[in-house]
Amino acid sequence: MSKYAFGVDIGGTTVKIGLFDKEGTVLDKWEIPTVKDNAGVQVLPDIAKSILAKMEEKGIAKSDVAGVGVGAPGAINGEGTLVSGAVNIGWGVFNISEALKELLDMPVKAANDANIAAFGEMWQGGGKGYSNLVAVTLGTGVGGGIIVDGNILTGANGAGGEIGHIHIEDNETESCGCKNKGCLEQYASATGIVRLANKRLAKDDKPSVLRSGEVSAKTVFDAVKAGDELAIEVAEQFGDYLGKGLAAVAGTVNPEIFVIGGGVSKAGEVLLKYIIPSFKKYVFVACRETKFALATLGNDAGIYGAAGLILNQ
Amino acid sequence: MSKYAFGVDIGGTTVKIGLFDKEGTVLDKWEIPTVKDNAGVQVLPDIAKSILAKMEEKGIAKSDVAGVGVGAPGAINGEGTLVSGAVNIGWGVFNISEALKELLDMPVKAANDANIAAFGEMWQGGGKGYSNLVAVTLGTGVGGGIIVDGNILTGANGAGGEIGHIHIEDNETESCGCKNKGCLEQYASATGIVRLANKRLAKDDKPSVLRSGEVSAKTVFDAVKAGDELAIEVAEQFGDYLGKGLAAVAGTVNPEIFVIGGGVSKAGEVLLKYIIPSFKKYVFVACRETKFALATLGNDAGIYGAAGLILNQ
Repeated sequence: MSKYAFGVDIGGTTVKIGLFDKEGTVLDKWEIPTVKDNAGVQVLPDIAKSILAKMEEKGIAKSDVAGVGVGAPGAINGEGTLVSGAVNIGWGVFNISEALKELLDMPVKAANDANIAAFGEMWQGGGKGYSNLVAVTLGTGVGGGIIVDGNILTGANGAGGEIGHIHIEDNETESCGCKNKGCLEQYASATGIVRLANKRLAKDDKPSVLRSGEVSAKTVFDAVKAGDELAIEVAEQFGDYLGKGLAAVAGTVNPEIFVIGGGVSKAGEVLLKYIIPSFKKYVFVACRETKFALATLGNDAGIYGAAGLILNQ
Repeated sequence: MSKYAFGVDIGGTTVKIGLFDKEGTVLDKWEIPTVKDNAGVQVLPDIAKSILAKMEEKGIAKSDVAGVGVGAPGAINGEGTLVSGAVNIGWGVFNISEALKELLDMPVKAANDANIAAFGEMWQGGGKGYSNLVAVTLGTGVGGGIIVDGNILTGANGAGGEIGHIHIEDNETESCGCKNKGCLEQYASATGIVRLANKRLAKDDKPSVLRSGEVSAKTVFDAVKAGDELAIEVAEQFGDYLGKGLAAVAGTVNPEIFVIGGGVSKAGEVLLKYIIPSFKKYVFVACRETKFALATLGNDAGIYGAAGLILNQ
C-alpha cells in the first residue's frame, strides 16, 4: 500500500499543491506560479518538477506514492481530457492525465476544479460522511459540483454541476456573462449580491449603512448581522433566488446535502437562514428535508479533492 | 451464462411481465391484474406464481434465468427498499428485492418505475447508444428518470429525476397536486396542456377548432398539425415551459440526450419543434447541443428497463 498522494489545484494565477498521507491528512502544502506564457506550455512541467523536488526533499520514493490528482478549470471528461480547453491558462484541448503521467511516471487523475472541490468537501470537509451531495461555490460566479454515490457527476461534456446558469428569473433585462438573461449567477454570486444591493439602494431613500462605504457581499451580510433592514431585504432576495435554483437541482439529483462554499459563504450560518426557507418553499416535497452545511476546506478544497481522487476510491 | 431474464413492471391496475433473452429481445409478454386488497399482500406472490408458471410452460430451468428485474411506483433506494411505501398499490415500507427473491429463489433487482423506463429507453429504445440521458415522461403528470454513466441516478431518498415539480413559474395562482405553485407538471403534462388550452380559449374569442369538441393533449397537437393558430400558441407556451425546465435539468446533470415519452409524446416530432428552441434559449451554452429524441418503447419501457437491470450491467 502506497503511503502518499499529491493533490494539485491549477488556477489562473497559482498552482496549489498538497502532499497527503493515505488517511487524507495534508502533510505539506505550497504554491507555485501558473506561468501562462506560450499557451501555458510550462504549467505541467513546472508541477512535475515541484512534485519531484518535494519527494526528494522528503525522501519519498515513487513506489510510496499512490498517484497525483489534478483539478483544472474547464470541462474535463472522465478520461482527463480538457474538452474545450481552458482560456484562463491558455490551454487548448489535450489530455491532462496522460500528459502529466508522462512527465511523472506515476498514476494521474484529472477532473474539473469545481468538481474536485466538491469531492474534497465530501471526503474531508463540510460534506464528510455523505456520498450524495451538491457543493455550491458562491464566488465571483456561481459554480457547483455534484457527487452521486461517491462519484463526480461529470456530465456528457464536462458541464455537470454548472448550476450557475440555471434560468431563474423571467423578467431580467441585463445579460449574464454567458449572454443569457436571468441566470442564478446574476443574483447569488458575490457580484450578483452587489447588483441586488445597488438596485435596492437606488429604489428609494430607505436608510442603510450600505449607503456609506463600499457595497460588497461581505458588507451586505455584515449589515444583515447588524440588523440593517435594507440589507435584510437584499439577503431575502438573494435567498429566494438561490433557494429556488437549488430546489431545481434537488428535484433533479436529490442529494442528501448541499455544501455551500466560496467567498460569499464566509458570511457564515446567517447565509443558510436566508436560503433554507426559500428552498423548502420551492422544492418537491420528497426533497424538503435535504440538509445544508457550510464548506469547511476553503481554498484547500481543491487539493483535498484532487488527492481524494487518488485515495478515496 | 444464463439465457433469460424477466422484466416486471408493477402498475396500479396491472402488472406487466416480459421474458427476455440475453440480447434484450422480448420473447413473450403478458399482464396479470394488480390485486390491491389487504394492502397489496398478494401482488408479489401473484408475480412469482406467474413467472414460475411461464418457466414451466417454456421448459426454462432456474439455472437458465439470470434474474428478475422489477419496477414499482414510489421511491426505491439502491437496495430495493420502497422507502415511503406506494399508496396506489397499498404497500408500506419494505424491501421489494428481498421479498420477491425469497419467493422465487432467483436474483431480483427493484427500482422505481420511472427510472426503469428511462433505463429501458437507454438499453433498447430512443436513447440506445447513450449512457448519459434523461428520460422525460409526459403523461397525467411529468416524471423523469436520469441515467449517469449507464447507471440509474436514484438520489438520496429515491426522488432522483422527479423533475415534474421543478418550480418554473413565479406567477402561478393555482396549486399543483404536490401543493406547490408553478411546478413544471402544471404546464407540460397532458393535464397541464389542457389547462393552458382552456385558459387561452377563455382569454378572447379567437377562432379555433378546439372550441368545438374535447380539449385534450391529443386534440391540441392535432390542431397544431392542422395549422390552428390558437393551438400553436398553446404549443408555444407548453414548449417554453418544458424547454425552461429541461434547461435547468441539463445545467445540473448535462446529459447527452433527452428522450421524451409518455402519452403526450404520441404527438410525435412536432413536439420537439416546440421544446428545442426554448431549451436552447434558456440553457447554459455548454449544454446547447444536447440531443432530443422521442421514446420508442411506449408502455413496454418498464419491462425492458427491468430486464435491463439484470442483463445490461
